[in-house]
Amino acid sequence: MARSRVAIIGTGLIGASIGLGLAARKDRQFEIVGLDRDRMHAKEAKKTGAVDRDVSSLEEAVEGAGLIVLAVPVMGARRILEEITPFLSPGAIITDTCSTKADILRWAAEFLPETVHFVGGHPMAGKEKSGPGAASADLFRNATWAVTPSPRASEQAVGVVLGLVDTLGAVPLYIDPQEHDTYAAAVSHLPILLSVALFRMVRDSQGWEDASLLSGPAFRDLTRLASGDAVMSRDIMATNREAVMHWLGRFENELATIRKALELGGQPVADLFASTQLDRDSFITDPPVRRRPEGTPAPSAQDAIGRLFVGGLYDKLKDVQGRATQTQGRLGDDAELRRKLGMTDDNRD
Amino acid sequence: MARSRVAIIGTGLIGASIGLGLAARKDRQFEIVGLDRDRMHAKEAKKTGAVDRDVSSLEEAVEGAGLIVLAVPVMGARRILEEITPFLSPGAIITDTCSTKADILRWAAEFLPETVHFVGGHPMAGKEKSGPGAASADLFRNATWAVTPSPRASEQAVGVVLGLVDTLGAVPLYIDPQEHDTYAAAVSHLPILLSVALFRMVRDSQGWEDASLLSGPAFRDLTRLASGDAVMSRDIMATNREAVMHWLGRFENELATIRKALELGGQPVADLFASTQLDRDSFITDPPVRRRPEGTPAPSAQDAIGRLFVGGLYDKLKDVQGRATQTQGRLGDDAELRRKLGMTDDNRD
Repeated sequence: MARSRVAIIGTGLIGASIGLGLAARKDRQFEIVGLDRDRMHAKEAKKTGAVDRDVSSLEEAVEGAGLIVLAVPVMGARRILEEITPFLSPGAIITDTCSTKADILRWAAEFLPETVHFVGGHPMAGKEKSGPGAASADLFRNATWAVTPSPRASEQAVGVVLGLVDTLGAVPLYIDPQEHDTYAAAVSHLPILLSVALFRMVRDSQGWEDASLLSGPAFRDLTRLASGDAVMSRDIMATNREAVMHWLGRFENELATIRKALELGGQPVADLFASTQLDRDSFITDPPVRRRPEGTPAPSAQDAIGRLFVGGLYDKLKDVQGRATQTQGRLGDDAELRRKLGMTDDNRD
Repeated sequence: MARSRVAIIGTGLIGASIGLGLAARKDRQFEIVGLDRDRMHAKEAKKTGAVDRDVSSLEEAVEGAGLIVLAVPVMGARRILEEITPFLSPGAIITDTCSTKADILRWAAEFLPETVHFVGGHPMAGKEKSGPGAASADLFRNATWAVTPSPRASEQAVGVVLGLVDTLGAVPLYIDPQEHDTYAAAVSHLPILLSVALFRMVRDSQGWEDASLLSGPAFRDLTRLASGDAVMSRDIMATNREAVMHWLGRFENELATIRKALELGGQPVADLFASTQLDRDSFITDPPVRRRPEGTPAPSAQDAIGRLFVGGLYDKLKDVQGRATQTQGRLGDDAELRRKLGMTDDNRD
């Protein structure tokens, strides 16, 4: 029974949704335990079936667990990585769902013993409400799930995390951690700031009451991220500040360009909206293709998590290791990324 | 049969959704005709049952129609108001769904004969896709529908438009046109610019391919308005520029404040996210109450449109007229609104 347990640390929206997705596997031969700083969250996760058992200490949660999922804000994950070290079984696989990836990979290398495997992860999913009550087994269906294995994670460990991703219906995307953070700053972290700024602007205006009465789906959608977990947002900004600042500068430039177009009026404004509508529509109707890694068909990847827990060795996914190694080769190739994004230039050009 | 026709001018997403909602009335005794500059749109609206008949000229559409719905971008509505004048039957009711209200009320006063009634409208609804193919009868369910009657619109005319709103499941909100435009700039028009700026920023960056692969619901939701009809957006900016510029300046100030908080780090950032999460959550869980006007219970309002078409006089909604008059009283009270919003101050304080 030594490896027949999955521990979910943090049973909020993401952790509890993972639990529900795993619990729905008909063939499962593993127990799911949950721990949350907020004991009520862990109890609620047990009640909804997201975890089989709620525990009250890191030791209880991870001792003997084969797979440990850290579904907490990134600064909390750091503390947990430091604290769980004495309790980890050799061969344990640790993954996470944190919004930034470079720091956590650094901390994993620093704190974890060499006998365990860290495979970073970030599901690009979320919803308006947080907490286990908002969780659902299909939260991750068709979502991109960034996978960032540590250089010393075994092929088998990567396969297990792929199996988790696949079980939840998500599509894995191998990506260098630094690259992840740079692009996540553009498509996920800056949008949090825009949501917060828009909500605060209207909320703090004297016209709030009338404006909120008039508000419809546009305001609701654009301010959705302002309801995101505040600690998560704070930690994102603490661990990805340079990239967020970079994109904030670029966004301010875009606004300045739009302001100029509005001041001119006429054709420039028409052109701006028309070309953006075309580009946005083709992004939606012909979205970027997230191909499954070659040689890792869905059933095999799904089997990985099952096999791990019945002790079988996972012998496929050769290609995964190849890709993981390839990705690692790009780690630290920061200069190239910065050049590509023009990050060495002044943001305010 | 003189008043037994509803004419929908513009059978895109909004016009065709109105048609579908009206057509679903089991008791209807009126014909719905549709006209669109894009003849294919009108034909598609006929095919889906949003209109009973598609016509090819304004004359055909409005001659003898009792209710005329202008569901086109606001500059198009201006042209139509000018052109339909010779064909209007005395007593005809004209309403619109345009995103800005002050200009169209001015044009209605300027162009329309005194024998007809103009009651402005603006449903706060929309979706990612445009065109009649995206239309649905429940697009407006529970949406706020701003209602801005012209000073000379009769009580009966207001009642008919209320009946339309009610038939579609929306909730009417009486509002002064200038006030509408000021607040719509904050909760609807500025958000279009933010969506466009965010989409353009990422789309035009060299990292677009990787960033789009990583993008999830946050990016999709925040850029949704960039897929909005480009002509509609252009016309909004042309007819509501001052208010949009005002809020754009305030938004830039919010971003500057957030930038400062991020530069400081620590508690200010935590406080910003925490207080915004609380405020946004209570906006969602305890939304502003859009009360139905007193004395206008839903069934009566729904009856209005039915009764009109069987020639009955609409004798309720006394209260509506009272409210409409009250609202009119605020028309032109621009100084008060500007003061309230601090619009006379420099935006960039």
